[in-house]
Amino acid sequence: MSKLMSLMRPQSVAIIGASNTPGKIGHAVVENMKSSGFAGEIYPINPKDPEVCGLKAYPSIMDVKKPIDVAVLCVPVKVSVPVAEECGKAGVKHMIVITAGFKEVGKEGRELEEKLVESARQYDMRIVGPNCLGVMDTHTPFNATFAKNMALKGNIAFISQSGALCLAILDWSLKTGLGFSQFVSFGNKSDLNEADFIEIAANDPNTKVICLYLEDIVDGPRFIEVAREATKRKPVIILKSGVSAAGAKAASSHTGALAGSDTAYETAFRRAGVLRAATMTELFDLASAFTTQPIPKGKRVAVITNSGGPGIVASDSIELGGLEMAEFSENTLNFLKEAMPSMANIQNPIDVIGDAHYDRYETALNAALADPNVDAATVLLSPTAVIEVDKVAEVIVEARSKYPDKPVTAAFTGGFAVEKGVNYLRENGVPTYAFPEPGIHTLIGMAKYAELKEAVQDHEEWVFDDVDNDKVQAIFDKVLADGRDLLLSPEAVEVAEAYKIPAAPSRLATSQEEAQKFASEMGFPVVMKISSPDIMHKTDIGGVKVGLKSEEEVRDAFVSIMENSKKAAPDAKIYGVEVQKMMPKGDEVIIGMIKDPTFGPMVAFGSGGILVNLLGDASFRLASGLTKREVEEMIAETKAYKILKGFRGAEPDDIPAVCEAIARVAQLCRDFPQISELDINPVFAYPKGLSGIDIKIKLSK
Amino acid sequence: MSKLMSLMRPQSVAIIGASNTPGKIGHAVVENMKSSGFAGEIYPINPKDPEVCGLKAYPSIMDVKKPIDVAVLCVPVKVSVPVAEECGKAGVKHMIVITAGFKEVGKEGRELEEKLVESARQYDMRIVGPNCLGVMDTHTPFNATFAKNMALKGNIAFISQSGALCLAILDWSLKTGLGFSQFVSFGNKSDLNEADFIEIAANDPNTKVICLYLEDIVDGPRFIEVAREATKRKPVIILKSGVSAAGAKAASSHTGALAGSDTAYETAFRRAGVLRAATMTELFDLASAFTTQPIPKGKRVAVITNSGGPGIVASDSIELGGLEMAEFSENTLNFLKEAMPSMANIQNPIDVIGDAHYDRYETALNAALADPNVDAATVLLSPTAVIEVDKVAEVIVEARSKYPDKPVTAAFTGGFAVEKGVNYLRENGVPTYAFPEPGIHTLIGMAKYAELKEAVQDHEEWVFDDVDNDKVQAIFDKVLADGRDLLLSPEAVEVAEAYKIPAAPSRLATSQEEAQKFASEMGFPVVMKISSPDIMHKTDIGGVKVGLKSEEEVRDAFVSIMENSKKAAPDAKIYGVEVQKMMPKGDEVIIGMIKDPTFGPMVAFGSGGILVNLLGDASFRLASGLTKREVEEMIAETKAYKILKGFRGAEPDDIPAVCEAIARVAQLCRDFPQISELDINPVFAYPKGLSGIDIKIKLSK
Repeated sequence: MSKLMSLMRPQSVAIIGASNTPGKIGHAVVENMKSSGFAGEIYPINPKDPEVCGLKAYPSIMDVKKPIDVAVLCVPVKVSVPVAEECGKAGVKHMIVITAGFKEVGKEGRELEEKLVESARQYDMRIVGPNCLGVMDTHTPFNATFAKNMALKGNIAFISQSGALCLAILDWSLKTGLGFSQFVSFGNKSDLNEADFIEIAANDPNTKVICLYLEDIVDGPRFIEVAREATKRKPVIILKSGVSAAGAKAASSHTGALAGSDTAYETAFRRAGVLRAATMTELFDLASAFTTQPIPKGKRVAVITNSGGPGIVASDSIELGGLEMAEFSENTLNFLKEAMPSMANIQNPIDVIGDAHYDRYETALNAALADPNVDAATVLLSPTAVIEVDKVAEVIVEARSKYPDKPVTAAFTGGFAVEKGVNYLRENGVPTYAFPEPGIHTLIGMAKYAELKEAVQDHEEWVFDDVDNDKVQAIFDKVLADGRDLLLSPEAVEVAEAYKIPAAPSRLATSQEEAQKFASEMGFPVVMKISSPDIMHKTDIGGVKVGLKSEEEVRDAFVSIMENSKKAAPDAKIYGVEVQKMMPKGDEVIIGMIKDPTFGPMVAFGSGGILVNLLGDASFRLASGLTKREVEEMIAETKAYKILKGFRGAEPDDIPAVCEAIARVAQLCRDFPQISELDINPVFAYPKGLSGIDIKIKLSK
Repeated sequence: MSKLMSLMRPQSVAIIGASNTPGKIGHAVVENMKSSGFAGEIYPINPKDPEVCGLKAYPSIMDVKKPIDVAVLCVPVKVSVPVAEECGKAGVKHMIVITAGFKEVGKEGRELEEKLVESARQYDMRIVGPNCLGVMDTHTPFNATFAKNMALKGNIAFISQSGALCLAILDWSLKTGLGFSQFVSFGNKSDLNEADFIEIAANDPNTKVICLYLEDIVDGPRFIEVAREATKRKPVIILKSGVSAAGAKAASSHTGALAGSDTAYETAFRRAGVLRAATMTELFDLASAFTTQPIPKGKRVAVITNSGGPGIVASDSIELGGLEMAEFSENTLNFLKEAMPSMANIQNPIDVIGDAHYDRYETALNAALADPNVDAATVLLSPTAVIEVDKVAEVIVEARSKYPDKPVTAAFTGGFAVEKGVNYLRENGVPTYAFPEPGIHTLIGMAKYAELKEAVQDHEEWVFDDVDNDKVQAIFDKVLADGRDLLLSPEAVEVAEAYKIPAAPSRLATSQEEAQKFASEMGFPVVMKISSPDIMHKTDIGGVKVGLKSEEEVRDAFVSIMENSKKAAPDAKIYGVEVQKMMPKGDEVIIGMIKDPTFGPMVAFGSGGILVNLLGDASFRLASGLTKREVEEMIAETKAYKILKGFRGAEPDDIPAVCEAIARVAQLCRDFPQISELDINPVFAYPKGLSGIDIKIKLSK
């Protein structure tokens, strides 16, 4: 057992600030520990009372003189740091700091919190909180919280950034009968954070599904690593609230403008294999289903109903949600034809029709689940005069256990007529709802997890050896030494070339002769532009010449561009004239990178050219750990993909080259964290190869 | 009272097929009528028994010899037509035909159903059904169904195409306490259909909201007319299941390919002002809210919470759903600053924080509702140790009645700790949920209705007098006489010109001289194309010449195009050579029309050019009744609008001209129902004016 695991499996718990006064937090925690069924030692710490809640109390943690796994701090905030010191000296492994008044109240509290963490570090203690409700584990069992009740025993770990929400969910779960393995409120997460609790729950054999309510993430890369590992074993479902302010900031670049405020979390969650819940209802519907249902092998759903309307409603949900209506095998159809009355519909959805007794449900459901073309089923029931609701419930539970690999949900629409059946189904682990749609939404979530679980197996970062780091470093050093953060266009092209990212040739000429030489090297026609960070509207002042077809035109252009620029902007710093080869027009895409403060660089791909932000057609992936499969997926998600594939009979573009360019941009941004923004827009994609036309690279100073 | 209203307010009801045998439908209907509290006369009809369920029975409807408003038919299907005849002779006004075995069983049943309708027409009787559950009205009251129970009295009219769903919802509503004014199962809708029942419910003073479950619509235009009228008075909420097959069919045109399978219903519902529910839960959540809450005046929502997490969750839902977080007035902020503790957040969402007692909710909620910048509020509660849940519930109910114009929803997250408060809120007409999101979704639906209600006031069809119907008719006659259904390009241009729809000039030349004359009339450069319905790939065979700049080039082109075409396709029917003026390139949009079998012609607008289907950027409106405001809205919904407005500093295009062109296309398609498809793609939009480049018009033969 790792040290962290002992937080949830303590053998001894001390409560500092334990109290005999009902209503005090230190009283509630002692009572909760006592009544939780905890098998280890409980040490109330109280400087005055020799006994708390009938247990021997100690004046100080130093007086216990036995190993202490967990100390719960319910002391006034101003004594919390000295108390933590004492805990350290007493050999406490973990502190659960319920005490509030830290970071959440401002500067002074923040400093106090830093001191708390410092002293914990010094003694190698870990901290939950401060400003939290505490933690409980129903299998250990122990309850180191001040909540009114203990959670029902179950297999869901619930981890929440909001303590009040914990209390609310706990109360709600007692009424609805939802059970939990672990219930964690981590408060200010001064030390242990969401990643640690995901790791703990992933290693907990009693936890089948991990649910989180999060408002932010402390350490993006570690969160992703831990969540990916967890996802390989069990679903991680997160309700993330609040929109990230980070996205909006980066909007100075094309790529930045393509990213929405939620793009970073969406991208990170995808990489992490996290199943994202849109609402609290969905979070707990899914969590509950994962504790009782197997993961479906595919997306093909069978629907069994005794009424047409709900069957159509379910079919609509299946198709809208990306699942498929199962197509029954010949065998199944032949069997159903025999077994069902002629009026019944034996195609999916199977309509056993209004005069059906329970046996028709039994026949249809078993036939569907036996069919190899079926991955999951949902059973719909309307309370007709003849249907034996309770028996249908039994039939479903039996069929579930006969086909243990296929999840089944149910919707019994009705009230008093169906309630016994609904209760029986829920008690026997069949997720059952009042209407057809939630049962389908649950299956959609489960199928999505199956995909995510497979996707997180994919881990080989796409890396190229033929890149020239030193050259790039030298260019960046020069740029920074020059007091700039934006690379000149020819510099950006040099960087791209060093990483074999295809770019239209571009050189900075400082004389007529150089310009002429560069142009003949790269080949005509060329475009020439004044190279100056101080001149914005280059075309307007005569600082741009396009379509230059000969050495002579190039020489003349050099002179006139320099003259025009000096006249228009006498004080501008001029680096020379950029000579760029004019490339044949291709299909326009964008490749770019923006940086998220939590998750680091994200590469982007989408439709490019001047309409890039109009279409808003882009997909994102984390640069770090980017795999070939991810690159292929991100391209396939865009509308640009349709063009690359050869739209309306056009010749397809060189998609492997596009993939490679994205991966190389990702590697460049991984290797050089000082790149703060990168845009290649447009990239011309051709049937063979591609060419980055306009490359912008910005560094953090 | 209209004759139709007497269906729901009968003074006398006969039950034909009334029976003393429990379990028979004819028994259930008599018992239901008896126990419903119906104040009028009940006439059981039974050929053998002189008394049914303790009421005097009559051998035949002919024997009653008193006015009969409604006859309920529970007779065997084979005698239904003669029984209907008797009803007619007896002066029955309405028949509710519960009997099944008609259209739904095939051809024979369909014929029987036609005969039933025929005899009803003959006697001026209206029919509900056949193959239905019947109808009830809780205010009349009467219950002419064979359901086990009567609905609770309330203000929701529920109208369903599925009888089994009716039974299920009825049973469910009894348990959840949802009340109904009318409960209608219309079965095969042989006569009365959804439109009739919407009309009845719209006129019913006891109905505050009309809810429908529909699988299809019989008469599109009448449905729209009736639903629009109803929407002016009360919300019409529809759950429409099943996808329309109509959309897919029309995909041969560009416009058709832009339309999804659900576009026609989406477009029709928008025109009708129908609020569309995505799920059954949403249908009834909204219905219930409309019976107790006022319609909000705007979209600005105040959130009051005692815990941060749920407040953020609610804010997310508000912003994602198109509502706005209210910004409090200076007054309100000053007041809250005084009244709330310093730790509380007085900006929206107002966080009264975890130590709040009920009085802090009272202060915050009243301050928010009093603020003129607030249109609605939602109150969130987590059961902390100190909060008086029941008193918060009372505070909300009081505040609701003090501010009768502002809807309020609530989310009390919890179980036993909140249940009394939740029940109090629900009993006192505050929609209350377990989690924050549904309360916001309810407000979203209510705000949407406020918009729809305003939109249906808009009714002035945009019509132009300066069109030449006769010319268009002549062209169509000629085309059809020629055995074609597709207009030649110059013909289509002529049609457009007759309706003043801007089109690039195009003429059909049958000789070198004509070609030369046309070209100089329209101005150079021109493009020339072989005009033949039999030649598909005109460019490949040398049948197209572009960029012709002089009379000489035009003469030469005529000859070579004709020669090339005759060589490549000796048997093709050739009409001549089309001469079209080459227009300067503008921003490309598409204007088109597709026809829906239920709702008629729909005009479309979107991004045009060759990428039209790639972008899938299009909006649709019904051509019939199209208003100026609708045209403006449909343009504003598209991405093309951003380009028209002047993207990235470009000069804006002539948007009024685009609007007018759409309206003229709509009028053309209204005036000539024989147009089955129309595409103008691309349309070049310019800063001044526009030009339709490629016009395709197809007629139904």
